[in-house]
Formats: sequence, C-alpha cells, structure tokens
Amino acid sequence: MVMVIEVRLKHVKGAAESVEKSSYVIIEEEAQKGQMQSLFINKAPLHIEIGMGKGNFIIENAKKYPHINFIGIEKYDSVIIRAVQKLEEEKLDNLKLIRMDATNIDKIFEKEVDTIYLNFSDPWPKDRHAKRRLSSSTFLKRYDAIFSKEKKIVMKTDNRHLFEYSLMSFTDYGYQIKELSLDLYKDDYPDNIATEYEEKFHTLGYPIYRVSVNKK
Amino acid sequence: MVMVIEVRLKHVKGAAESVEKSSYVIIEEEAQKGQMQSLFINKAPLHIEIGMGKGNFIIENAKKYPHINFIGIEKYDSVIIRAVQKLEEEKLDNLKLIRMDATNIDKIFEKEVDTIYLNFSDPWPKDRHAKRRLSSSTFLKRYDAIFSKEKKIVMKTDNRHLFEYSLMSFTDYGYQIKELSLDLYKDDYPDNIATEYEEKFHTLGYPIYRVSVNKK
Repeated sequence: MVMVIEVRLKHVKGAAESVEKSSYVIIEEEAQKGQMQSLFINKAPLHIEIGMGKGNFIIENAKKYPHINFIGIEKYDSVIIRAVQKLEEEKLDNLKLIRMDATNIDKIFEKEVDTIYLNFSDPWPKDRHAKRRLSSSTFLKRYDAIFSKEKKIVMKTDNRHLFEYSLMSFTDYGYQIKELSLDLYKDDYPDNIATEYEEKFHTLGYPIYRVSVNKK
Repeated sequence: MVMVIEVRLKHVKGAAESVEKSSYVIIEEEAQKGQMQSLFINKAPLHIEIGMGKGNFIIENAKKYPHINFIGIEKYDSVIIRAVQKLEEEKLDNLKLIRMDATNIDKIFEKEVDTIYLNFSDPWPKDRHAKRRLSSSTFLKRYDAIFSKEKKIVMKTDNRHLFEYSLMSFTDYGYQIKELSLDLYKDDYPDNIATEYEEKFHTLGYPIYRVSVNKK
C-alpha cells in the first residue's frame, strides 16, 4: 500500500511580516555568511536542520542541549510561522531560524556548521528529480563548503526509497555510516526527539529510519 | 515479537562419506589455493557463497549464469549433503562445493574471487561475538586477500540488527553501497534467486534486506 499525503500549504495571513519581526529569525542572512556564531551569546558547535517544518525537533533540541547553537531552515513563511508562534513564550538564546530555500545553503554558511539534520525531507520520488533530494551529491557538494571540520549528517525518514537512495548517495560520496536504525521505535533510543511528521507516521505504524553518517 | 528459530543439525548417516565422494566437492582444497580456476572447464569470473546451506541459491545461480564459475562453502556435512543430493542428476560444470569453516577462507583462496555472497548468515546477536559475523572487519580483512581485483559483496538477510551492523561495518571498511533494498519483495527484482531460508521467512511476511557493496 502506498499512502500519499498531500501537504497543503495554507496561506497564513500576515505570516511573512510576523516571521520577519521575530527576534528568532535571521534576516539579511547572506550578510552573516561565515560568522553565524556572532548571532549567539555563546560560541558553541553549530547544528542546523534543513527543512525544519513547524520546528518541534529543533526547538526541543535547543532546550535539551543548551551548549549547542541551532539554526532551523524552512522555505515557507506559512510553515515557519508555526515555529515562531511556539517560540513566543520561550527564551532560547541558542536557536535561530532562517526562511530560505536550501538550494542556496552555501550562500549563507561557510565553514561553520558541525552537524546537519535532514528530517522527513521531500523524497522527490521521480528519478529525474533526484538532484533535488537533500541527500543527493548536488547537495552533498554544497554541504562540503559549509561544514567546519568533520562532516556529520543525521537523517530520519519514513520513506524507504529515499532512505535507500540516501545511504547509497552518502557512501558513494565518501561518508561512513556510524549509527543506523531501520526501525527506530523498536530500538532503545531514549534521546530521540520526534518531528511532527514522525509522531504521525510512527503512530500509524510505519517504521522510522534513522542514520548518522560522517566524513573526515 | 522476536521469533527464535532453532536450527537442529541432524546427524545424517554416511553424510561425510557421500560428500567426499561427490565429483562436485573439492577435497584437499588447500592444495588448490590460488588456482581454483583449474578445477573448472572454462576460465570465468569466480563467485563464492559462504554458508550456502542446502545450496538452492548457488545451484540456481550456476544454472542461470553458465559463464560464471561458482563455489559454495558450507561447514556441516549434514547440510552440504543436501546440496550434493540435489546435484546428483545435474550436469553443472561451473559449480563446485567445499566443506570448510569460513574462518579459514584465506587459507583456501588467494586473489581469485570476484564476488562473495553472504546469505542469511548467522547473526551472532551478542556483542562479544561480533567478530564472528561474516561481515565483521575480521572477515573483511580475510576477504581482502582472496579478492582478485575489485571487491564485491552481496548480502541478504531477514535479520535487521545484522543488516544494520553490516552496513556500518562495510562502509567503515571503505566499501560503497551500490544496490540496496530494505524490502526486497516489494521492489521489482525479477533476477532474485531465493535461498531456502528466504522462501520461508518471506512467506511468513518478514522483510528481506539486500545490499551490494564494492570497494576499489
């Protein structure tokens, strides 16, 4: 059975304005290239999530790991606004958000990222769209330019074909698999922080795949 | 649910003698080290299966691919005898069998193997037995010595933890993942040849994992 979930992007009135006004959101992000650390109170390892959606994963990470700086990236105002709303009553000085298309990731960061999270990314199921997948060599090349030293990518998805493709793409590009679960919720994984999608799909009984890869 | 399948090794009367008498079985295999090709009528790429069990996989491969030479390896007389019995009425000049423990694989072969098949290998679930897994670095080191040029390993299993471990072990050792299926019977895979175990576990509804890795 193939289940197709259509994600409707609702127009949220005033979203763009509210996003730009939030102190959590980095605007004129290209001007910060290579010096994102200056936006945070403490200098710390920088972890980014590309495609953070409504932000549950990165917000919970920021709360749990105060000694890591986090930046969440999301393309759509109507989605990122949900994260901004969640953050209204929080005081997190180790989290920032950027509204941007991941295609431009290497125009925003330069040799300053320690870990990239790819959670439930768009699978782009058609072969001719493979280059758009966030784990394609097209993107891995961009990531090369934004990593500080060791390269580390942590991916979760419920999409089997995207996961198979990603493992091949990572190892073909020289990454080694350091942690791997083909059924996350059957393994003992107390530190897992779920995304909104993950909660839904896990509850529906789908296996969640997770991998951590790195490259020297 | 964890299902434990106990494999009883029956004592098969006269198995050792019947195995030794078969023209398919290589005896004094150490004397052939580095010159296995001389046992076959045609010089051809050499593919071996370590732990062939009752032999369905390698026998069907030998029938389907006459231009490849195959050697099946199995430790137990009481198991290899089943393959010998199946072969009694066949005339396959591209298949040989060896009764031996895989631990000694590098005492038997030298720079002459093109592909290794590991099908439904013993998972050795306890951490302290990890070195006994056929995909551990202990074995990968032995395989280095027996491969002719490019190294290629094709693995199938229904054991999730063994598969996760193996993908990490392979990529940690420098192998790249070239083909991957996390649910073989849901993918379009017309050339698949099933082992006896695979038939049983697939029928019970378990996903079958398959990977092909190589290393320059």
